[in-house]
Amino acid sequence: MSLLVLGTTALDSIKTPHAENPRLLGGSASHAAVAASFFTTPHLIGAVGDDFPRKYINLYRKHGLNLDGLQQLSGQTFHWSGEYEQNMNNRRTLDTVLGVIENFSPTLTAAQTRLPYVLLANCAPDLQANVLDQMRRPKFVVADTMDLWLNIARAPLLKLLPRLDCLVLNDSEAAQLAEEDNPIAALPRIHKLGPKYVIVKKGEHGAILSGPRGLFVAPAYPLKKVVDPTGAGDSFIGGLMGHLTSQKGSIEKNLRSALIHGTITASYCCEAFGLKKTTKIKKADITKRVRELSKMVKW
Amino acid sequence: MSLLVLGTTALDSIKTPHAENPRLLGGSASHAAVAASFFTTPHLIGAVGDDFPRKYINLYRKHGLNLDGLQQLSGQTFHWSGEYEQNMNNRRTLDTVLGVIENFSPTLTAAQTRLPYVLLANCAPDLQANVLDQMRRPKFVVADTMDLWLNIARAPLLKLLPRLDCLVLNDSEAAQLAEEDNPIAALPRIHKLGPKYVIVKKGEHGAILSGPRGLFVAPAYPLKKVVDPTGAGDSFIGGLMGHLTSQKGSIEKNLRSALIHGTITASYCCEAFGLKKTTKIKKADITKRVRELSKMVKW
Repeated sequence: MSLLVLGTTALDSIKTPHAENPRLLGGSASHAAVAASFFTTPHLIGAVGDDFPRKYINLYRKHGLNLDGLQQLSGQTFHWSGEYEQNMNNRRTLDTVLGVIENFSPTLTAAQTRLPYVLLANCAPDLQANVLDQMRRPKFVVADTMDLWLNIARAPLLKLLPRLDCLVLNDSEAAQLAEEDNPIAALPRIHKLGPKYVIVKKGEHGAILSGPRGLFVAPAYPLKKVVDPTGAGDSFIGGLMGHLTSQKGSIEKNLRSALIHGTITASYCCEAFGLKKTTKIKKADITKRVRELSKMVKW
Repeated sequence: MSLLVLGTTALDSIKTPHAENPRLLGGSASHAAVAASFFTTPHLIGAVGDDFPRKYINLYRKHGLNLDGLQQLSGQTFHWSGEYEQNMNNRRTLDTVLGVIENFSPTLTAAQTRLPYVLLANCAPDLQANVLDQMRRPKFVVADTMDLWLNIARAPLLKLLPRLDCLVLNDSEAAQLAEEDNPIAALPRIHKLGPKYVIVKKGEHGAILSGPRGLFVAPAYPLKKVVDPTGAGDSFIGGLMGHLTSQKGSIEKNLRSALIHGTITASYCCEAFGLKKTTKIKKADITKRVRELSKMVKW
């Protein structure tokens, strides 16, 4: 079984107090699909411009991504530039060039519409709905979102929610969506908007999964040094969906373990700029940290 | 075996966006000793003034506290008043009256000096050292501290650290003490200052214990509503030390479970003002939430 991954394929220019890295491979679909590639074959749905470096296409291929759904369009690749503060938690966007993503409206192949697992990584809710409209009876649909869409596209996002099996968002976004500061109190309100499962990401503090079996309070892998957290949320959801796609048995049974595999994949993402670390690790590195983390939470 | 608990016995006036509660029973030793009382007999070492309500002494007695070390001195009881912001995480001190605690210098009885477990709850490092000086070969000594002492009594605090088995502090205090923002990177630096075990409290995000067995990444019990977090850290360490005191076998073996019992005791503390909830629960309530939390972290 394999996984459809829709999202942005971008160039990211990232400044931290310690370094500056221009035009790195980035975007929600790049991070999510590479993270998923350790467990399954991700089918990437995205668009790049004619400035997109060949080497990044090669990197996608090296990770076994199916690129039938990656369009190269005339124009600029989506480009985000941002700057992190000293504590590496707060960031601000310096510039955004939408480029070819602005009018991207993919038409899926028959094979793509039959993929059972669907990851709608962070992008405009209209684009997420457009792709979901084309899918034929998917087994499990997850979407990620961000504050930007809550601010400028709340209506299409609310329309999308009942069509999802699982919504992933961070704690401040959960508070904004539910109009409730306490994430535990926000969860039932978000379920009422549609999704059976809700995952609230808390960065270095882990994540909380809410579903029919109750709450899963998941730790993050403790990192001594965070070099660049850009894409960690995308890696998290990519690793999660990749692992889930690769497992037999019920979603309910596999979701917690999948989430932990997502957490660990994301931990590697934070240890270097862009995808530099994630594209150097092996599946065995993920397994090793999953085992370590499992020892760190036992009492 | 039983537990010595040194700290403040205070009156707290607490304002939140939703309510105002004057002259509640508070103080680090009150919270810690009541929390410990579910598991062992805490011997309270503290001082109150002649304005200290009789009903609070009765409450201590109801919880089985040994009050041989509680002095009633002429003057005012230590009084703290503070105000919480909307999110219940940020608070500011409105007023502090030290009262009788200012010149409190306890002399322990022979029986008290032989207690095997010692909890130096949050108070001046000089007072913590004074009591520790009088103890005869304690089995396990834990101290809590706060930013105030890091600011105005760093030297006596640093002098105390090598005499502790375990130091407990919150994430921002850990950063301040270690001069390192990342708590995982701060831990080895704090170990170098003396304590074999270090616990970094992260409030609603749980805690991290560092010791010879490595890291223990502990969750917090997810609460839908936090009414008043005052004393949660004291309840945490009190529940932890109470449980540890009550268990057979090595500290190393029991510390993780003790920490979880501390976390759960602290969860109740947050659900009402001051000690109002903690003084209403039974040990079975703690056991119930420990069991629930244990299911919430399994994968």
